Amino acid sequence: MTRAEAEKLDLADTLALARTRFHIPEGIIYLDGNSLGALPVGTADAVAQTAERQWGEDLIASWNKHRWIDWPTRIAAKLAPIVGAEANELLIADSTSVSLFKLLAAAVRARAGRKTILTQRGNFPTDLYVSQGLGDMLGLHVNAVGSQDVLSAIDTDTAVVSLTHVDYRSAAVHDMPAINEAAHAAGALTLWDLSHSAGAIELDLTASGCDLAVGCGYKYLNGGPGAPAFIYVAERLQGDLHNPLQGWMGHAEPFAFVDDYTPVRGISRFQTGTPPILALAALDAGLSTFDGIAMSDVAAKSRSLSQLFIAEVESRCGEQVRLASPRDPHARGSHVVFAHPQGYAVIQALIARGVIGDFRAPDLMRFGFAPLYNSHVEVVRAAEVLADILAIREWDQPRFHERARVT
Amino acid sequence: MTRAEAEKLDLADTLALARTRFHIPEGIIYLDGNSLGALPVGTADAVAQTAERQWGEDLIASWNKHRWIDWPTRIAAKLAPIVGAEANELLIADSTSVSLFKLLAAAVRARAGRKTILTQRGNFPTDLYVSQGLGDMLGLHVNAVGSQDVLSAIDTDTAVVSLTHVDYRSAAVHDMPAINEAAHAAGALTLWDLSHSAGAIELDLTASGCDLAVGCGYKYLNGGPGAPAFIYVAERLQGDLHNPLQGWMGHAEPFAFVDDYTPVRGISRFQTGTPPILALAALDAGLSTFDGIAMSDVAAKSRSLSQLFIAEVESRCGEQVRLASPRDPHARGSHVVFAHPQGYAVIQALIARGVIGDFRAPDLMRFGFAPLYNSHVEVVRAAEVLADILAIREWDQPRFHERARVT
Repeated sequence: MTRAEAEKLDLADTLALARTRFHIPEGIIYLDGNSLGALPVGTADAVAQTAERQWGEDLIASWNKHRWIDWPTRIAAKLAPIVGAEANELLIADSTSVSLFKLLAAAVRARAGRKTILTQRGNFPTDLYVSQGLGDMLGLHVNAVGSQDVLSAIDTDTAVVSLTHVDYRSAAVHDMPAINEAAHAAGALTLWDLSHSAGAIELDLTASGCDLAVGCGYKYLNGGPGAPAFIYVAERLQGDLHNPLQGWMGHAEPFAFVDDYTPVRGISRFQTGTPPILALAALDAGLSTFDGIAMSDVAAKSRSLSQLFIAEVESRCGEQVRLASPRDPHARGSHVVFAHPQGYAVIQALIARGVIGDFRAPDLMRFGFAPLYNSHVEVVRAAEVLADILAIREWDQPRFHERARVT
Repeated sequence: MTRAEAEKLDLADTLALARTRFHIPEGIIYLDGNSLGALPVGTADAVAQTAERQWGEDLIASWNKHRWIDWPTRIAAKLAPIVGAEANELLIADSTSVSLFKLLAAAVRARAGRKTILTQRGNFPTDLYVSQGLGDMLGLHVNAVGSQDVLSAIDTDTAVVSLTHVDYRSAAVHDMPAINEAAHAAGALTLWDLSHSAGAIELDLTASGCDLAVGCGYKYLNGGPGAPAFIYVAERLQGDLHNPLQGWMGHAEPFAFVDDYTPVRGISRFQTGTPPILALAALDAGLSTFDGIAMSDVAAKSRSLSQLFIAEVESRCGEQVRLASPRDPHARGSHVVFAHPQGYAVIQALIARGVIGDFRAPDLMRFGFAPLYNSHVEVVRAAEVLADILAIREWDQPRFHERARVT
């Protein structure tokens, strides 16, 4: 595709306006929003104003006056259309890892007697580590099977099936409704990590029969580095599930300061400590980049960008690279992975030329497409630069490694 | 004391300069820094710059370029002189409640076979709730005894003694070295919540023989609402303690993305999720308010302010109020509590006049003195306003409750 043809696609892009909601540095094609989303133009001001006008002026009274106490649920409600859930099923709190622990522990307690956490080999590491940690603590078996073997591994000892919806390496998407159904048929619960899904592809947690989910705030949701995570607990389960990290913010009456824990009704029982207000202000601004945007448009653009990238790379680079993501766009998240034996060096060369992707061992070059701000022109240009680097075998050039180190 | 005499004390105050490091709203006497410290003048800019110049410009590369990955330990190191510990024994992470869970669970695992968490009735609620939650999970007994009975309750079934160093209501200070010694003699560990201590009074965790501690970042450390917490683990214990919230940031090689968890050596094994960079930038600015300041001066000023307040209130209000904090300043933290049957209404009346304290049921009026920014003139004025409110029984005045509601 020529640049002019790509420009035509961008002109027809219903999401083109959304790019103006972000600061994208001059000369950079940022294809790593699936690791850390770009900075929304409103974020720095939102956080500074929260500090200066609220904290600075109203001090402790801000918890009431500015309803800080409600921010974990108020901001979570903005996620409802993004993940296809009801607002009262969502909460912003803690990190993704801590959230995983909470929900896994709640799930195994609700399925007492069952001793297995079923997960996947090669799942995102923190998901595995959290399961292993909880397993050690409670004498549970963590059964990590191959991706294709999950359905057949669900049995009557399975307390919870814990999976990442979109694989962080290949972008392969699990069949969420089928796994939920199989888990429920066996009496198990499901916990989905949506870190690589939320904000990039269409989700309907309600219709898919999801029980529990978590996801990170700093990828496609643009909440900033280390942004708080979100938690989803289906309303039908909230009364039966117990947060193991019992803290005062999950108490029915946190300001009664009584000695014994009684969880509040609803999703807020999954709160633990004091809400991180400045970080929440940033995530709030991140979620505002989705204002007025339909997730069907986001998902369609994700497919359009990633299909174009695959086509351009394959036509320009031929057999030098191997697609390591599913070819069917409906079986894939919003990133694309190509394998190349010199993958690490190629990514360094791309970064040196302003095309930011990332590398995953042993040989995977990963490119994430953030539908709100990436364009078709960028995609074509990125493929062009990649092809050029491969054509001249840039990693063999004198002084390449020195230059790459500098960038 | 007259205003002129108080001004003299302020002129001689070695910490007077520190007040310029804060934004204190005009007309406000803020005696609630023990709930939420005042806004440092550098915070809003520090957070905005982190967003705009680092995240916005350098995107994902910031984790290396700006060493974000090291911020949890770099910023923790600023706490070392504040709490009397070595830099490599401190970490910034998560909330106080989540940190309590981590260290309690680590402690009971390290003392396997012992079944009791010993704590105090009336401890800060989240400390109790976290213990109860862990106790439920692991079949442990949470023994909450009266404050005076802690020492005698330590026995060979005690895995860990979990106490708040400075009581959030009375400000009574536990004898940390004595309790550490008794716990160690019985083979138990100690976990101290320093939320009402750190940044206000002198601490020497090393010399006191502390094992474990946590504390919040948003009180005297001025990190902002819901700031991340800190964790202290004595170096001698780090190799033996296991973080139950195993996440990728506590892994020996987080970016190797391997399936099995191997904790990193040292304090960083107590990390779990991705560090919250914007919140860390705010806490960093908060800790900078201590630059060049000796904690012995902070502690001396804390005593000077609180002793003056007690003397002024008692001389002006006589028997209308009852001191509910220890009279000995060395047995007290940096807040002072007076009881009054109309305590709630009195606090509302004080707030309406710009003197911000807070109320704790049933009848306690709590006033916190932040040595970095409170002055002797403020203390005298606060006592004067309190005495005036009591003299005219303001809560009995027509329209008081309406006015109080508005503020």
